[in-house]
Amino acid sequence: MTMATSHDAGVQGTYRDPAAVVSDAIHDSKKHLLLAASGSVATIKLPLIISSFETHPNLSIRVILTKAATKFLAGQSPEQPTVPSLALLPNVDAVYLDEDEWIDPWTRHSKILHIELRRWAHLLAIVPMSANLLAKVTGGLCDDLLTTVIRAWDVRRAIIAAPAMNQMMWHNPITAKQVAILAEEWDWFEILSPQVKQLACGDVGQGAMCDWHEIVEAIEERLAST
Amino acid sequence: MTMATSHDAGVQGTYRDPAAVVSDAIHDSKKHLLLAASGSVATIKLPLIISSFETHPNLSIRVILTKAATKFLAGQSPEQPTVPSLALLPNVDAVYLDEDEWIDPWTRHSKILHIELRRWAHLLAIVPMSANLLAKVTGGLCDDLLTTVIRAWDVRRAIIAAPAMNQMMWHNPITAKQVAILAEEWDWFEILSPQVKQLACGDVGQGAMCDWHEIVEAIEERLAST
Amino acid sequence: MTMATSHDAGVQGTYRDPAAVVSDAIHDSKKHLLLAASGSVATIKLPLIISSFETHPNLSIRVILTKAATKFLAGQSPEQPTVPSLALLPNVDAVYLDEDEWIDPWTRHSKILHIELRRWAHLLAIVPMSANLLAKVTGGLCDDLLTTVIRAWDVRRAIIAAPAMNQMMWHNPITAKQVAILAEEWDWFEILSPQVKQLACGDVGQGAMCDWHEIVEAIEERLAST
Ligand SMILES: Cc1cc2nc3c(=O)[nH]c(=O)nc-3n(C[C@H](O)[C@H](O)[C@H](O)COP(=O)(O)O)c2cc1C
Ligand SMILES: Cc1cc2nc3c(=O)[nH]c(=O)nc-3n(C[C@H](O)[C@H](O)[C@H](O)COP(=O)(O)O)c2cc1C
Ligand SMILES: Cc1cc2nc3c(=O)[nH]c(=O)nc-3n(C[C@H](O)[C@H](O)[C@H](O)COP(=O)(O)O)c2cc1C
Repeated sequence: MTMATSHDAGVQGTYRDPAAVVSDAIHDSKKHLLLAASGSVATIKLPLIISSFETHPNLSIRVILTKAATKFLAGQSPEQPTVPSLALLPNVDAVYLDEDEWIDPWTRHSKILHIELRRWAHLLAIVPMSANLLAKVTGGLCDDLLTTVIRAWDVRRAIIAAPAMNQMMWHNPITAKQVAILAEEWDWFEILSPQVKQLACGDVGQGAMCDWHEIVEAIEERLAST
Repeated sequence: MTMATSHDAGVQGTYRDPAAVVSDAIHDSKKHLLLAASGSVATIKLPLIISSFETHPNLSIRVILTKAATKFLAGQSPEQPTVPSLALLPNVDAVYLDEDEWIDPWTRHSKILHIELRRWAHLLAIVPMSANLLAKVTGGLCDDLLTTVIRAWDVRRAIIAAPAMNQMMWHNPITAKQVAILAEEWDWFEILSPQVKQLACGDVGQGAMCDWHEIVEAIEERLAST
Repeated sequence: MTMATSHDAGVQGTYRDPAAVVSDAIHDSKKHLLLAASGSVATIKLPLIISSFETHPNLSIRVILTKAATKFLAGQSPEQPTVPSLALLPNVDAVYLDEDEWIDPWTRHSKILHIELRRWAHLLAIVPMSANLLAKVTGGLCDDLLTTVIRAWDVRRAIIAAPAMNQMMWHNPITAKQVAILAEEWDWFEILSPQVKQLACGDVGQGAMCDWHEIVEAIEERLAST
């Protein structure tokens, strides 16, 4: 699957290298929100989060989904629209999947998608951040588009991340260690802690993604100051 | 490949969501052994280990294989039966591959396979544990079914792990560091150390999986006390 | 794709297990250089590096490419020949991709490619080493041919590694931590530090792979002393 999901493509009518398209948009004087989701059930909040920015006067949103995130947005229920339909939401200018990094065979002087996205973005919000993504990011791994953007991030700009996972995953000692790296050592990260919640299995525990309204507020606040 | 290898499917005659099937089995008053193998040559001991429980009166075994583990069980020799044939061994109720997590598109209130398996299991035995799996587990990575079960594990229950690797892999300093995390910090892990053995290449060295009889004994002991 | 790119195959006329072929070459009294590249733009220097050994009297080169490395050698420009064409360069006896580990279903007493390559090699040079590879290696991960060779390395022999990455990747604090592990703790690694350079985007920064002539010199020096 290529960037068929992108508004960019629609506007221009003909195919253009996704990295070159982003590069051209860097100086369009809008606020640039890079919104990413990983393989957690909380990915279904993404459409709500995007829609809440509908009335924002001057916003451009680009979305990155990990491969696992796409499994939660496959049109299987009313609250789970398909991935291509995300691109039809207000302010969304493109939805990227891993393949988009490699669509055009790289030659010298080509633009590189993860670099252009990082240069374009005023803010990256990772909602939700899965346990696996937390491990990859703190371990320096970058084997897909999202982790490569994060690894190449310009640390003078902020990243908001909202972890979301099963409460046993959350209480595993490795979680606290890895969250502490982001929250205490990497000061360009802002962590929105998960909430304590009655979970589907009947247990009460922490791990569920923080309320999505809170995420929207945190994003608004950060964007206002960029 | 789906759960075609499962007894569950055979018994019910019609297809059912693997996670729902496991959920229903949680209260069947049997002993529940979750048996996993990763991409080491020692994976060929798995059929022997399973068969040694043949006379166990009240045991249910569910098997998880990593993608690399399946390469060692492809019917290429008498001691290497195919993956589907594992499901025909006594007490084996299902054999899971990574794809089984994602067979049914998740919707709100669906069961989740790695969570149900963890709730079902009284004990997880990882025989063998590859060098790569050791690194993923201690690093908090969870990008396949087995590592996701481990990441979401209920730490009040035990995990037995039997590392098996080439002696140079074993003697690399990273091995001791990562084994120490499991053996000393994560007290729900019990590590069965590899043995010193004449290896195929003529070298003598440590790294071969501990004798499989010892693994069977360790499992028996743990199951007895659950 | 199999080892169709290998000289070995051509010479013997009939197909042979790649691991067995390497095993037979261990005692051919040549100098054995294992040359690896990962998914960095600097992979395009690989043909130049190989060609500079053209006049070496008694050298055998085997090449390993990660999956991402192959994207930079796909015949898309004059300086980016195809992967199979690498095997036609002087002294190159084989080019390996991940699939080559698993071509022949393993049975007891089979040779194992990553073990035979490690036994064969007098020196491993990783040019370039990507940020992702740096993370995998220092984290003990081994999920492809190159990382498995490195994880099983005989630490009495040397590994030369030349990191190459975007300057923001380089300046991320995780890079220094991981490079320090290789440079200070794992004394079988020699790190060739990246250079400060005017980058394509106009920025000046460190991260570009060190000059390839310097790499050739470092390899020559090491090989002379084996
Ligand atoms: C139905 C289902 C729900 C899941 N929910 C979560 C979750 O809420 N949080 C989490 O960390 N992992 C969850 N996982 C596991 C991740 O999807 C898995 O670790 C995946 O490899 C993450 O990939 P990513 O981090 O690249 O997106 C879930 C898996 C399944 C099958
Ligand atoms: C023939 C063959 C035998 C292998 N044997 C082992 C082994 O005994 N131990 C080990 O740690 N890795 C071994 N490996 C390497 C692993 O299979 C490789 O690291 C793989 O990615 C592990 O995946 P997993 O941990 O997801 O199962 C072997 C590889 C091959 C091709
Ligand atoms: C066009 C392009 C150029 C890239 N250049 C680099 C680079 O120079 N250094 C780097 O560390 N990663 C670079 N990356 C990212 C890696 O290719 C990516 O992290 C990949 O997963 C690395 O895989 P490997 O380490 O298995 O080879 C680049 C990606 C693209 C699409």
